Amino acid sequence: MQAQLIALDWGTSSLRAYKLGPAGVVLEQRSLASGIMHLPTEPRDIAGVRCSNGFELAFDAACGDWLDAQPSLPVIACGMVGSAQGWSEAAYRTTPVDVASLGQALHPVRSVRGVQVHIVPGVIEQAGLPNVMRGEETQVLGVLQGLGAEVLIGLPGSHSKWVEVVDGCITHFDTFMTGEVFAVLSKYSILGRTQQQSDLFQAEAFDRGVHVALSKDGQRGVLSTLFSARTLGLTAELSPEQQPDYLSGLLIGHELAGLPARARKTPIILVGAAPLCTRYQRALALSGFAHVSLAQEATERGLWQLAVAAGLTQPVLEA
Amino acid sequence: MQAQLIALDWGTSSLRAYKLGPAGVVLEQRSLASGIMHLPTEPRDIAGVRCSNGFELAFDAACGDWLDAQPSLPVIACGMVGSAQGWSEAAYRTTPVDVASLGQALHPVRSVRGVQVHIVPGVIEQAGLPNVMRGEETQVLGVLQGLGAEVLIGLPGSHSKWVEVVDGCITHFDTFMTGEVFAVLSKYSILGRTQQQSDLFQAEAFDRGVHVALSKDGQRGVLSTLFSARTLGLTAELSPEQQPDYLSGLLIGHELAGLPARARKTPIILVGAAPLCTRYQRALALSGFAHVSLAQEATERGLWQLAVAAGLTQPVLEA
Repeated sequence: MQAQLIALDWGTSSLRAYKLGPAGVVLEQRSLASGIMHLPTEPRDIAGVRCSNGFELAFDAACGDWLDAQPSLPVIACGMVGSAQGWSEAAYRTTPVDVASLGQALHPVRSVRGVQVHIVPGVIEQAGLPNVMRGEETQVLGVLQGLGAEVLIGLPGSHSKWVEVVDGCITHFDTFMTGEVFAVLSKYSILGRTQQQSDLFQAEAFDRGVHVALSKDGQRGVLSTLFSARTLGLTAELSPEQQPDYLSGLLIGHELAGLPARARKTPIILVGAAPLCTRYQRALALSGFAHVSLAQEATERGLWQLAVAAGLTQPVLEA
Repeated sequence: MQAQLIALDWGTSSLRAYKLGPAGVVLEQRSLASGIMHLPTEPRDIAGVRCSNGFELAFDAACGDWLDAQPSLPVIACGMVGSAQGWSEAAYRTTPVDVASLGQALHPVRSVRGVQVHIVPGVIEQAGLPNVMRGEETQVLGVLQGLGAEVLIGLPGSHSKWVEVVDGCITHFDTFMTGEVFAVLSKYSILGRTQQQSDLFQAEAFDRGVHVALSKDGQRGVLSTLFSARTLGLTAELSPEQQPDYLSGLLIGHELAGLPARARKTPIILVGAAPLCTRYQRALALSGFAHVSLAQEATERGLWQLAVAAGLTQPVLEA
């Protein structure tokens, strides 16, 4: 099957490349560790030019052979590749945004082989505290097909995003630093000293953490409940193996407690790595969120739709 | 003036020794870096015995000469020295506790020179989530003289404590990991990458952080507002020099927002290092807490009162 588009999901720590066929079907995909903070450094010849630029080197490693075979394939990319530390800065678009407005705002950067890489701009919200995302907007747009007028899309991660969509438009979003706070506290704070990693998910401890976040104690805020990850260890109510999942449940519980009240009645779609989405799905159920489902292939579908909106490729092949 | 008591404030990172005279007046004081996690290791002769125990070595360095001069001086100590990682574990006493009940529960450990060191037990609260403290209970008891029936005592720090006292009894307390969360996020999270330390206190940024914590945005919780320490930098609303104090104000603001509503009407006493107490005093004023004052010499006064309650020394010299 002939390829129609190269789609790149280029974040801080990894670069995923998709070769997409008609209607956006995935023909081939690759994952490289060449995120924008981990670029290759070994100079190499690309299109007859000696090249030492890490972005060029990673781009060539990801899809140079696909372009050799089909030099006119359009290329689209989302994620931190468009940040100030990326290949070329794509200025944020302000909410509200939809597929059409983002597709018309792609930021082109010309690679050494002459191919234009069309970078999806991130999104900024400036009402109240500013909020930004790069890459998540593409995933959100990728899962909207067939959904109702109002949905809430949760993207768990190092910096979890909760994105409100109304009639296909991203109208508002929040960021929670839950994943990164979990990581730094586990690694560098006193809480990590008594933790012991376990291969088994400690469901009871996780659920307990969620419940504490939702309880009257939880109303004092996470800076207070955090200490219970230590004191419940001191009082032998949590074993060292249970403490990491207790902390995880506690933090996710506080994140969910921070969602607006109306979110409990809105259909929720989770997008992200399966093990993390499973945790969030469990915590959402414990927290009384009724309508939760999981999305697949959000990034590649989003990139396809943006490329179509930009006129880089055709929506479907006519019969 | 003849000494009456040796009082030790022996924490994780430091050891402070006080030689107290009649009525608890401080005759001499010393500060050593020999907290229980930083004990000396070089073996030495103490009272004719070759000694390599770090607690013995630190104890001798802190007040061996005072005991040589007055071998029968009683010794009292508070803090992490009584923890499981300390010299000898002093089991927690359960709330409610007052000077009399704690003074009667001192835990003795015999040093190699034959002197008994009387360790103040920490305090545990087991209603709801467990909460513990070691050392702060002594500071609290040290500042109660002349206060009304109900006070709230704030002890800002790595793990801030807020202690409710009714008629001289510690009835309830909470812990907030504010200081440690600030430290690990500044050092190890993405927020630290754009921060720049400043010699000047950035008052405007600090106040802004407090206000955000108290605002509608703050109701989503600190896991959400944290990200604004980054995005306000991205949008050039906070300079790199302002970001550390913004984060400090934000976290302290969230801590204060977690105090019970009645705390706004209760007299508040702050105990701790002056620069940190000044920050808290400022944030408390911004948050609408009306009656705030600062205490001095809390630890040495508390240790004196506990020693009196234990019968180790006399309250005042008769004329």
